[in-house]
Amino acid sequence: MRGNLYEALSLYVVTDEREDVDSLLTALERALAGGCTAVQLRRKREDGGRLVEIGRRIRELTNRYGALFFVNDRVDIALLTDADGVHIGQSDISCRDARKLMGKRWIGVSAGTLEEAKAAVSDGADYLGVGSIYPTSSKDDADLCGLSTLADIAQATALPIVAIGGIKASAVPEVIGHGADGIAVVSAVMSASDPQRAAVELKRLLAVLPGRIR
Amino acid sequence: MRGNLYEALSLYVVTDEREDVDSLLTALERALAGGCTAVQLRRKREDGGRLVEIGRRIRELTNRYGALFFVNDRVDIALLTDADGVHIGQSDISCRDARKLMGKRWIGVSAGTLEEAKAAVSDGADYLGVGSIYPTSSKDDADLCGLSTLADIAQATALPIVAIGGIKASAVPEVIGHGADGIAVVSAVMSASDPQRAAVELKRLLAVLPGRIR
Ligand code: NI
Repeated sequence: MRGNLYEALSLYVVTDEREDVDSLLTALERALAGGCTAVQLRRKREDGGRLVEIGRRIRELTNRYGALFFVNDRVDIALLTDADGVHIGQSDISCRDARKLMGKRWIGVSAGTLEEAKAAVSDGADYLGVGSIYPTSSKDDADLCGLSTLADIAQATALPIVAIGGIKASAVPEVIGHGADGIAVVSAVMSASDPQRAAVELKRLLAVLPGRIR
Repeated sequence: MRGNLYEALSLYVVTDEREDVDSLLTALERALAGGCTAVQLRRKREDGGRLVEIGRRIRELTNRYGALFFVNDRVDIALLTDADGVHIGQSDISCRDARKLMGKRWIGVSAGTLEEAKAAVSDGADYLGVGSIYPTSSKDDADLCGLSTLADIAQATALPIVAIGGIKASAVPEVIGHGADGIAVVSAVMSASDPQRAAVELKRLLAVLPGRIR
């Protein structure tokens, strides 16, 4: 199963915070139809009950399209929605604590520096989310890690790496060229007028770019 | 064990949102020394990693004083900190979902109406948090449930009831008189100049008031 994780993380779509959940799920389904391989539920302002409800709907969608489903931050919601994994940031529950509850499910860890990446590897992370690569409206510029750090991390570990943060189609070649195995996007797909076409175009790019040799 | 829950919930202190966690824990320890019987960790703006850290320190303190420890909302944090239970609101993970993860640990459910209380009972709650009884700075006036609803709920169920919301020492007789088995407080203890003395005084009042007959 681990071998497949590189491919399963190639086009990783993270949800946005829009109010209208039906619209969110419609956009996600389009993205899945376009080839999105993994979805992360991330809604920082959402209550637990609603997260479970939305998560179960995303679980259904991702099952239908054969995509992975991750929950950001909350291990309890990941377990209750039968997610494939949880994605944790540096200020969330630690990877070692998450493992106690997650068992064999995947754990992804955000890393913005080589040190954070090495710590995540030794703590048993299954993949790394590396970023922010470019400035985004949702993150501080202080969180920028840049392409050279991405390259350093890719050099240091064979764990699957998903690059995140302001990645547009035009940036995909340099992101993959610096060692990412996949890209995580929010607005490039979710804010596209046609999320399916946006996903198809990103997948087409990813398909022709040589990845790291495994 | 269930028999003891009425007493174990008699003086239930909920944490506040102060920045300084050492100061928070100092106040909690004073409250425990003064006879607080249960502590709930509720920090709506706190990240998961910090919640685990604070929760483990509260677990140590409550163990030392023989008090119960509850975590608000997050089942994952409750499990990782070995809490006695979780306390869930109407918009959090549902009681039935929480039970899947909590097993035999306690689950408390907030109820502001008789209907919510009945639903919580049939969903398997172990105790009810009923309120807000009085206006508080942290809650909307729309959430006020009042003493008559408290009395209706106490009439309808034998589950332990903890009344919450703006309860000061002067209000304890009427709150207990309307059927609460215990009181939950934030500022009456945590904002007191001497949290230990505040707890002692509340315990003294609770000790002389006749409760519901069990
Ligand atoms: Ni470069």
